[in-house]
Amino acid sequence: MALEIPEVVIGRLPIYARALANLALQGRDVVSSQDLGAQLGITPAQIRKDLSYFGRFGKQGRGYNVRKLVNELQRILGLDRHWTMVLVGAGKLGRAILGYDGFSRQGFHIVAAFDHDASVVGQTVSGVAIRNVDELEKYLAENQVDVGIVAVPAANAQDVITTLIGCGIKAILNYAPIEVQVPAGVHISNIDPVLALQSMTYYLKANQAIASK
Amino acid sequence: MALEIPEVVIGRLPIYARALANLALQGRDVVSSQDLGAQLGITPAQIRKDLSYFGRFGKQGRGYNVRKLVNELQRILGLDRHWTMVLVGAGKLGRAILGYDGFSRQGFHIVAAFDHDASVVGQTVSGVAIRNVDELEKYLAENQVDVGIVAVPAANAQDVITTLIGCGIKAILNYAPIEVQVPAGVHISNIDPVLALQSMTYYLKANQAIASK
Repeated sequence: MALEIPEVVIGRLPIYARALANLALQGRDVVSSQDLGAQLGITPAQIRKDLSYFGRFGKQGRGYNVRKLVNELQRILGLDRHWTMVLVGAGKLGRAILGYDGFSRQGFHIVAAFDHDASVVGQTVSGVAIRNVDELEKYLAENQVDVGIVAVPAANAQDVITTLIGCGIKAILNYAPIEVQVPAGVHISNIDPVLALQSMTYYLKANQAIASK
Repeated sequence: MALEIPEVVIGRLPIYARALANLALQGRDVVSSQDLGAQLGITPAQIRKDLSYFGRFGKQGRGYNVRKLVNELQRILGLDRHWTMVLVGAGKLGRAILGYDGFSRQGFHIVAAFDHDASVVGQTVSGVAIRNVDELEKYLAENQVDVGIVAVPAANAQDVITTLIGCGIKAILNYAPIEVQVPAGVHISNIDPVLALQSMTYYLKANQAIASK
């Protein structure tokens, strides 16, 4: 039954969990779907519908118990445990990812990093040793890894992703600027700030055309 | 008329432009909506409908002229010109953003960076001098800036975004892990790899529960 929940709903749950965790930190005990919706730019009806997939959380007219709902969402999303990740690609971007402390703070740990560049292999960046990418399959066979992070150039990304999937990786965080098709049962999220900029410029261009008239 | 095009359509155009630019590099002259759709995981009908907002590009049964369509999409999105950006927040994440060369390669140039930390102000990172954030408003009044990049901690992000919008910035790339409401006419894109991971773990958890039965 859990698998029938629409992907867009699952995508909103971490946003709810984060907003509720912030409210809990501020000492809030109860929040209405109206308040939460106003904060997130989502209609209260949508929030109530999304949460209804997972049971009854709020009491009519009483709002949600903040702490209870945070805990429940974290349990549903698997945020109450730790996850292991490997990084493939230890160039500029890969090193920045290794240096970013936001992953481990949220329970996502990079346990190994791989590159094909002999001048990089053997170095330790932010506490993680860079291994030869030839060892990737062996590493994945011998270690329990949940997520693969791909930070290689576009031209190599498809091969790396194919290898990760072949080794049983079911979740991929892809920083390479390409669209990759993955088989059913594998989830891929693309992180691409340039694409985000490229659709905003459409609106900037329209604004500037109006302003210059 | 241009402003009535749905935001989701605008969001897909850079993906089309990138795939077509890759095909052009590979020497392809013509591509069908079927081929393009298979590559991107988007139905051919969706691609034809999206492009139809901007005129008639393909000939029935002949496919699209790759170079012509790339040029047209780049013109529509404003990718045929350069854009200027300021970065607010020059901590670990901000420095990684300054070091990333993917922005300038696509015509997006960081022209100034700001931080409140006196130990950072005055340093030059990847060719960009870090200024005191107190000078942000003055800088934006005196220089033509298209985009604001926010890489400050969550607790400061709302203030920074309010300042940017107050200074007339209409496009914001937000790396801070918060949801921010912006007024009509301002566009914000959130880049948040942790949120992406947090919805994938839902599926990992479901898989692992099945596997362990």
